[in-house]
Formats: sequence, structure tokens, C-alpha cells
Amino acid sequence: MRIGELSQRTGVPVATLKHYLREGLLPRGRATARTQAEYGEEHVHRLRLVQALTEVGGLTLAATRTVLDAVTTPGTSVTQALGVATEALPPRPAEDADLDLAPAQRALELAGWDTWPDSAPVRQLATAMRALEAAGLDASPELVAERARLLAPLVREEVAAVPDTSIADAATFAALGTVLYEPLLLALRRLGHQDASVRRFGHPGQRPT
Amino acid sequence: MRIGELSQRTGVPVATLKHYLREGLLPRGRATARTQAEYGEEHVHRLRLVQALTEVGGLTLAATRTVLDAVTTPGTSVTQALGVATEALPPRPAEDADLDLAPAQRALELAGWDTWPDSAPVRQLATAMRALEAAGLDASPELVAERARLLAPLVREEVAAVPDTSIADAATFAALGTVLYEPLLLALRRLGHQDASVRRFGHPGQRPT
Repeated sequence: MRIGELSQRTGVPVATLKHYLREGLLPRGRATARTQAEYGEEHVHRLRLVQALTEVGGLTLAATRTVLDAVTTPGTSVTQALGVATEALPPRPAEDADLDLAPAQRALELAGWDTWPDSAPVRQLATAMRALEAAGLDASPELVAERARLLAPLVREEVAAVPDTSIADAATFAALGTVLYEPLLLALRRLGHQDASVRRFGHPGQRPT
Repeated sequence: MRIGELSQRTGVPVATLKHYLREGLLPRGRATARTQAEYGEEHVHRLRLVQALTEVGGLTLAATRTVLDAVTTPGTSVTQALGVATEALPPRPAEDADLDLAPAQRALELAGWDTWPDSAPVRQLATAMRALEAAGLDASPELVAERARLLAPLVREEVAAVPDTSIADAATFAALGTVLYEPLLLALRRLGHQDASVRRFGHPGQRPT
């Protein structure tokens, strides 16, 4: 199909398609004349992936390209593709040279988790632990390791749902799922606190107004 | 102490203290002359609470006042105070008349959780479930209930750490802890995904760069 039809099929404006071509997010079509190219189903599929990662996952175009490059590199493992996708997701951790990663790494060691020792989420964890300590709340490696152990069944269930049909499918699911299930998890946590405080303190009383 | 000393003790500028007095966030001092008042330790304590809720917890002054009113109302239960604190926290759920709460309420019923059926986190949960469905990801009440069951041990551990020394302490801890442990939980979830994908897919390979 020509670029106009590709635009109609996917709902992506032609100007955006040309931008994606220049940025390497979309592979060039098969040249049929000096100014014409033919696009196929692989372009439609790739565009759906780009739209999902940028619009739903909130990735920048540069981060999207990193993920796409990773999932199309021969020999990439699913674990690597998931790692690349997670690494590219917002929030970008602070580039803070003073940030001490040791307490976060110690917590992960105590939890027995096999993780990349200096990936973005380790920096996020170290930043969160520092903010908790500054507010006078407990964020010792022991407490964090205990929370990790309690969270393990849930994250394993999430990873069990990752499709293993293709590396690209796995990475897309991981990037979208990581971002989109976060609000669900945070809402459930607050609701779980309501339930747990009724269990511990009793007397729910009326809903606060 | 006079207002100037209260400002020195707490690091809150006099202009801000006067604003808090006008807004009812800080009780008036004991009048010692027509334009002078005497403040005590209860004012220092109250100011620490206001600073914690606004600066660390991210509450608006109006939301802070709601929490403070709740925790100083005679007969308030800890569960009510926790509920008021959670209800006041950001993010404020969308005031969307079309939002269908039924799938979220069904999920909570399946999980066996005792929650206020139309509180802010129920709206947050319903919004998150709608966004997941729009992206083609599973957010059925059955899946959400299963995630809730997996999250229950963690949230019960968090609520077990709530101090029961006073209603004010409990509500402050709940408001601060709810907000400040969120980034910790999200970082741990991403790290847990790394660990779980090594377990499921093996071959971690090199850290993505």
C-alpha cells in the first residue's frame, strides 16, 4: 500500500509517518519509484506498537526507538527485552551523583532478588528510601526486603501473564502493563488499607465526607 | 511564647503562621493583650503536622484542614481518621459522572474487602480499570480481585505499622506513609519483574544499556 493508505489504515497522519521514517521508528517501504514506496502489514503492526508505547506507555520517541531496536535485535532474550522496556519507562530517575545505591542493593540482596544492580528502578528505589528517611519513616534495608518478599507473589503473577509468543509482544506487554497497572496497584493499596484498618481497629463508622 | 518565637522554633515564617491562623489550620493563641497572643507546645506540634501533610504528603491547605478537623473531632475512630486522610490525598479522582463504579465494586466484593463503596480510591480503581480495558489489557473484576488477594499481606503489614498512640499520630502516619511508600512500592514492583522474568525466562544476559 502507498503511504496515504497506511495513514488511513492506522489513523496516523502522513506528516507523522514521515517523521517516524526520518527518526527510524518505522522502516522504509519498498521503493517503487523515485518518490514512491510500498508499505506492508509489518508497517501496520510496527505503527500499532509505536502508538501503544508513546501514547499509552508515555515513552518518548527516543525511548520508543530504544525498545524497538532491542526487540528486533537477533538473539535478544525475553528477559533482556523486558529489561530494556522497563529501563525506558518514565519516571526517569534523578541523575544524582550523591545518591547512595548501597541501601537499595542491600535490600534486594536480603530479599534474594536477581536484578541488575544499577538499573533505573534501583535508582528509583534508592531515591524513595532516601525520601522516607528524610521524613522520619522507616526505610531500612530490612523493612524494604520484607516488603519485597510480600510483593513477590503479585509480581510473579504479573510476569506469568506476559505472552511468550514473540519478543516484541512480550516487550510491548511489559512496557504497557508496567505503566497501566501502576494506578490499579496504587488504588488497590489504598483500598487494602481501608480493609486492613477495619480488621485491625474495627468500627468503620460512616464513610468520611 | 510569642508568634516570633513560634516562627523561630518551627522555621515557619510569621506571614505563613498568620495565614494558617486565618484559615483555621492553627488554633488561635491565648490573648495576652489586644494585639498579642501566647502560643504553646500544642501549636508547635500542630505546625509539624501541617508541614508534614502539606510539604511531604502533598495535601492542599483545604485537605489538610479536613484531616486536622477529623483527627480532633471527639469520638473519631482510628479507621475513620485513616479514611479521612486517604480520602484527602492526591490524586483527586476524576469527577466523571459516566464512570461506572460497578466493575471496581464487584472486584472488591470478590476479594472480600470491607471498603467504603464510593470513596476516592474506588473511583481511582474504576478509572484504572477503564484505562486498562481501553488499551486491550485484562482488567476484569476476577483479575483485579486476584491481584487484591495477592496484595493483602503487604497492606496488612503496612497497617500493622500504624501507631495507635493517638488518632492524630495514626492519621499523620497514614497520610505520609500512603504517599511516601508509593514510589518505593512502584520501584520494588519493577525490580520484582526483573527477578520474576529471570525466574520464568532465564538468561538475564547483560544489563540493557
